[in-house]
Order: sequence, then C-alpha cells, then structure tokens
Amino acid sequence: MTDLSPPQAGHQLLSAAEASAAIHAGTLTSEALVSACLERIAQREGDVQAWAFIDPEQALAQARALDREPPRSWLHGIPVGIKDVIDTCDMPTGYGSPIYQGHRPVADAACVAQIRELGGVILGKTVSTEFATRHPNKTRNPHRLTQTPGGSSSGSGAAVADYMVPLALGTQTSSSVIRPAAYCGVVGYKPGFGLINRAGMKFLAESLDTIGVLSRTVTDAGMLAALLSGLPVGPQSFKDGKAPRIGLCRTPWWSEASPSVQQSLLQCAERFRKAGATVDELELPAEFAELNDVQIRLSAYEFFRALSHERIRHPQLISDSLTQRIAVGGQVTRQQYEAAVALMKRCQRWMENEMSGYELLMAPSAPTEAPDIAGTGEPTFGLMWTLLQMPCMTLPCGVGQAGLPVGVQLVAACGNDIGLYRDAAWAEVQLSAH
Amino acid sequence: MTDLSPPQAGHQLLSAAEASAAIHAGTLTSEALVSACLERIAQREGDVQAWAFIDPEQALAQARALDREPPRSWLHGIPVGIKDVIDTCDMPTGYGSPIYQGHRPVADAACVAQIRELGGVILGKTVSTEFATRHPNKTRNPHRLTQTPGGSSSGSGAAVADYMVPLALGTQTSSSVIRPAAYCGVVGYKPGFGLINRAGMKFLAESLDTIGVLSRTVTDAGMLAALLSGLPVGPQSFKDGKAPRIGLCRTPWWSEASPSVQQSLLQCAERFRKAGATVDELELPAEFAELNDVQIRLSAYEFFRALSHERIRHPQLISDSLTQRIAVGGQVTRQQYEAAVALMKRCQRWMENEMSGYELLMAPSAPTEAPDIAGTGEPTFGLMWTLLQMPCMTLPCGVGQAGLPVGVQLVAACGNDIGLYRDAAWAEVQLSAH
Repeated sequence: MTDLSPPQAGHQLLSAAEASAAIHAGTLTSEALVSACLERIAQREGDVQAWAFIDPEQALAQARALDREPPRSWLHGIPVGIKDVIDTCDMPTGYGSPIYQGHRPVADAACVAQIRELGGVILGKTVSTEFATRHPNKTRNPHRLTQTPGGSSSGSGAAVADYMVPLALGTQTSSSVIRPAAYCGVVGYKPGFGLINRAGMKFLAESLDTIGVLSRTVTDAGMLAALLSGLPVGPQSFKDGKAPRIGLCRTPWWSEASPSVQQSLLQCAERFRKAGATVDELELPAEFAELNDVQIRLSAYEFFRALSHERIRHPQLISDSLTQRIAVGGQVTRQQYEAAVALMKRCQRWMENEMSGYELLMAPSAPTEAPDIAGTGEPTFGLMWTLLQMPCMTLPCGVGQAGLPVGVQLVAACGNDIGLYRDAAWAEVQLSAH
Repeated sequence: MTDLSPPQAGHQLLSAAEASAAIHAGTLTSEALVSACLERIAQREGDVQAWAFIDPEQALAQARALDREPPRSWLHGIPVGIKDVIDTCDMPTGYGSPIYQGHRPVADAACVAQIRELGGVILGKTVSTEFATRHPNKTRNPHRLTQTPGGSSSGSGAAVADYMVPLALGTQTSSSVIRPAAYCGVVGYKPGFGLINRAGMKFLAESLDTIGVLSRTVTDAGMLAALLSGLPVGPQSFKDGKAPRIGLCRTPWWSEASPSVQQSLLQCAERFRKAGATVDELELPAEFAELNDVQIRLSAYEFFRALSHERIRHPQLISDSLTQRIAVGGQVTRQQYEAAVALMKRCQRWMENEMSGYELLMAPSAPTEAPDIAGTGEPTFGLMWTLLQMPCMTLPCGVGQAGLPVGVQLVAACGNDIGLYRDAAWAEVQLSAH
C-alpha cells in the first residue's frame, strides 16, 4: 500500500521563507534543498505524476551555480515549479496538449526569466490540463490517488502538497489556481488581474488569464508575486495583522456546495469571529447570479479565437470535451460578448463600492472535496472572482466528510493584494491554532 | 531618379473591398491579385524595404489553392501583410530584433490562423521596429525615401501606401498604427482594446498592446477587424452615415503640433462642418495633461518585465535607446504604476460620460509630417487614446508644408468600433470630395 503521509524530516518540509532564511544565514545550501526535493520526487512521482518535465541534473546545476554567489533576493536558491503552459527556453513546454509534445520555446516567459534573475531555481515543469482547460491530464491527488488534484494547475497543486517543491506557478482563467490548491490542501493565490506579467504564457482567454502561485504558506505565495511585480512587501508584511472586517459571501451558488463544504465555511467564519474579526453576510444583487454564465460565455468566445491555430490545424489532437467547448465559443456572438463585458463591469463597480465596508470577503473555494480522477472538478466558486479581477487566496481550513482537504477562499478588493497578504496571514494563524 | 508615383494601372491599385467584389463575381483571381502585388514589390522593395520576409512562390501557392475553392468570406483571396511581431508558423518571425533573426514560431498567432481560415493570403511579414518600440529598422517612407515611414508598424504603413498590399496588420502600444499610417498617407485603425485576439503576438506592454489594421480605405480596415472579432458588420455598414456630432480635441499637446498639422486639422474641421457635422471644441480636464507621462511610465514598467528574457540573456543585442528605456522601466515602482492606472481609470470614466455628447472626436494623428529616417517620429498624439482604450482611426487629410501626408485622427467611445466605421467612412467621403 502506498504511503501517503508527509515526509518525517528533511529540507523538503521547509517553506520557501524558512529555506530562504537558512540560505541567507548560510546554514542551508540550495543544492541541499533541491536535492531533498528531487529525492521526494524520486520516491513519489510514480504515484503522483505531478511533473511534465524534470531533469535532476539540470536543477542541481542551477542550485550549485547559485550557491557560489551571494544571495540575489529572498528567492535565492529556492526551487520553483513552472506550470507547463508557461514557456521555458531550456525545458520543453507542452501546454498540456499532444500537439506541443516536446516543443522547446525560443525564450523564457517573462516570469520565468524574472525568477532566474531573482536567483530562483527552475525545478521543472508541472503538469497542466490540456491548454489549461478542464480536460484532465495524468496527475493524481497526493492525499488520495484515486481523486483528482483539480485543474488546470494540477501538477503545481499536487507537487506543492506532496512536498516536492515549496513554490509553483499556476494560471487561472476560471478556477485553475484556487481549485487545485483547495483539493490538494495548500495555499493558492490568484493575484489581482495583471499583477504578474503574462508575456510567454499560452493564452486561453486573455481578458481573464492570470498567473498565480501555489505554496504551503501565505507568505511564500505573496512573496513570490511581490518580487515579480515590485509590490513593496517583505516577510514582515505578513505579520501582526489585526482581525479584519470580513464579508461572508455565500455567492449565488451556495446550494451547489456540499454540506461538508458549507459547514466548513461557516465553522471557519465562527473561528474568525472568535479571534476578533467582524463577520457579516454580504448579499449580492440579483444580477450577480448571471456571472458564472457570463464568465463561461466570455471565455468561450476568447478560447475559440486564441486556439485558432490548434483548432484549424490539429483538430484530431484536441480532446472531445475541449472540441465541444471551442464549438460553443464559435457560436458566441460579439453582441453576447459585449453584453457579458458590460455586466462584468457593472458588477465590478458595485463590488468596488461595497468593498469599502470590508477588508476581506470569504467564500467557498470549491463546491466539494476532490472528486474522482475522471474529471478535474467544478470551477463554480472561482468564475465570479476571476471575472471581477479581484485578488483571491485559498487556505486549507480542514478536512471534509470524505476525509479530503477543504479550502476557504479569501478575496480582497482590486488593487489590494497587499491587504490580502496581511489578512490571509492573520487567517492562517487562526486556522493553524487548534 | 526613383519614380515615387503610384502605379498607373493594375490590380494592386484595388482596395480589398474592390478586389473582394471582383473575386466573388469571378472576374478576378487571387493569383492575379497576388501576382500584381508581388510585381509591385519586385519593382519597389529595393527602395522601400517594407518586408522582413516574403517568398513569392509561397504567396502564389496560397492564392492558387484559394482560387480552387468557393469564397470562404469577404477576405477570400485577398493578400494581407503581417507585422513581424506577430507569429507565423510557416514564415520566420523576428520581432524586429537581431535576437530573433530566423526564428520560426511553432504556431500561427490567433489572428493569422483566423485570416487563413477566412481565406486570406498571408503575403509576407512586414518590417517592425525593434520589438515594436521606437528604434528604427530599415523601411523608408514611399513618399520620400529620406523620411521615416513612422513606427513601429513601419513596413505595414509603407507597404500599404506603396500599393504592395491592400491590407496589413500592425500593433500599437503608443502610436504604432496611427503614426505610420499618418506619415505614409493611409488609413490606420487601432481598435478598442482587445478587439482582435492577441494570442501569439510578442508582448511589449500587455495592458496597452493592441493589434490594428493599415489599409487604403476605411471599409478595408473595418472589415478585416470585424471578421476577426465577429462584429456584425458588412460592407454596407460603411455607407450612408449621417454627418456626426464631432468634438474637436486639440489635446494638451496641441502646441507640439507643427503649424501645418494644426492648420490641417482646423481646415478638416471646417470641411466637416460644411458637410453638415456639428463640430465643438472638447476641453479636457487639467489632469489629462498628465496622461502622456502616465502612458510612458506604465508602459516602461511593463517593458521591463515583458522583455526580461531578452534584457537578461541578450543585453548586447538590444539597441542603446531601448536599453535606456528598459532601464527606466526598472526604476518605475509598483506604487507609481498603480497611481498611473488609477489616473487612467479616472480619465476613462470622465471620457465615457463626455462621449455621450459626441459620436466622434477628432485630433491630430502625429505632431509633424514624417521626419528624417534617423528616427521614427514622436508618438505624442497616440499615447492618450491608447491609454484610454478608445477605438481610433487616422485618415489622410491632405499634404503638409513639407509636401508629405498629414492625417486626421478620429476617435470613438470605447465599445463603439462600429460607430467609428460609419462616421470615419462619412469623413472619408468628405475628405475625398475636393
């Protein structure tokens, strides 16, 4: 029987912040850290299958070269997994599709080049679903191998959860960072729209696609995004947050959440209250109930166009489910698209006003615990926030009825990623204090 | 002495709409049209140097294959030039930089694949400045070879003006469609932000980069963009427009326009008035005067990130002027960036309200006629409109003091690209009636 327990000891247990502190103090080398991650991968990859590409020697060579330099940044020597829809010039980038098997991009994506510049180690490429859509790939949930890790950042969620790497990039168009993080029991951070530069990522729906971070702590996720974007944030920005004013947002899809997920969110709200937060219910106007459909229409219109080369030249190498979604996108008219954008903007403005009363919203991260591996689960609770362009973070908040992780999604106002870091770090403390 | 006069006769004189009608009527083949364009290129390319890549046989093979099919769309059989920052899978794509000389992308950009799907002929790749920035490339202004065609869509502007091709794609981050079109005396159309899908274009500043069209008529530019985006527009949408309510917007940079450009705009307003339009001066609030600096700051922050791979791996292959601009971008803080975005949004909202009083704004397209070939001219009159995400079209409106073309820039409200087509077509009629 497979041993699914976390490792007992070893550098791979360290958060990026802990490892960074040790590297800066001279008590840990990048080589030792990367070796520990590679060992864990060697033990577990046969089961978990989180990686689309990994070459241990290539990773170790980066680590050794960085060990010969003084630290360049907080990220120096820290391994990062890169979702395989983000280009790397020295590793194949397959976009989760057989069309691009073995494809080697001519350049690094902007965020990958920046990670190298900051002294990060590009550990390897993590598995994506097909073009970051919903069609599953090979990865399994490290908590239970029969279940999905979620999608589309499947490999990033599983690798981080399984202590193969402390940090990984994901991307979200619907719920592709939040959902896998929730299913895998880790932190998932979808920044406000546009925070991390997207040059060199494979576009699916450019008005929604957002690069995000998966990690095991709030600090790790926030620090990586802050370094890439220049947000004025240091490790201390995640400390000493006060209990925030929280809006509990059940969303129009509350009834689609399992009893276990509902209970978990309400218990979490209660814990926040007991820790001093004010938690009020936030009621959304009726038209918010259309937002999930609006997101699906808007993104389908864009899929159809963004994947033009693939749908025209390689239709036989596209999965049936994506073929159907693309066909739907081809039927969305420009008028429907514009109506979708108009509703999106109205709801953004309503939310902008409403957020003056709250520091944070809380909502479900996914409707259920991780379902069977035949799918990647439902994006239900990610669509609206992605459309509204608001920064979101999911934190593990316990175990559901099926014995698998459940997340709580924390949401801040547009432009307030730093406030999200502070308040999510506060929430993390409350959730870990049992 | 070089003959700079237009060709006397031949299919290369046809607009795309005229050629399309003839192809649909069976009186013209794509092969004959493409042959005429290739002949013109053979005569003139030594002087004009508009093309980064062209292979006559490859273009003719596409045309012949299309001639064997019933027409797929309005675009069937029509040759299109593709700016060389937009990926093509069967032609090299150099992004205007020696770093990418001979680079062959793995896939077509979305818009290129769509053009093929619509039956367009990908004639070749038109010259771009370095990464679509201001550093000039080899192209010369076909009206006077000592002058710049403008940038960054240099080749697209020159090729269309010189009757080498009726349609070409360009991209605009600052003024890179409007300026070359104005300098070359053709129509340049920068759609509202996001109208033409950007998957597979080389990003410079993703919050501004916009794919546009250069052509010799309003109908041609609008039809291509409409086909790509699904706007419900046909050739008849460009006819029978009524005289619009026009806001004459001198902009805060009026004093930077040459007397000849100023006079030309005011004369143009007078002609529109005489044709029945109402033309009022639109005064902008004081903070609009900051928008050009804001655009420069915002785009520099994004350049620095988007070009990370190139600035880190190939610094010696980047021009001095771009190296300097990238360095400036590295100094822009996230707070400055966010302040820039906030001002941009305030001005967008002001403009949104104000545009209820106008169907169209008119403004200069460029501060001067085409300057010397050592540079690519100033983006002064493009920055603000790009930042405001409004659809813009420049139309040739005469010849300036230096004997070179001058354009008038027509601007519609966000989301009203169709209104722009109608009103710009009306303006085109007035400007051609002498």
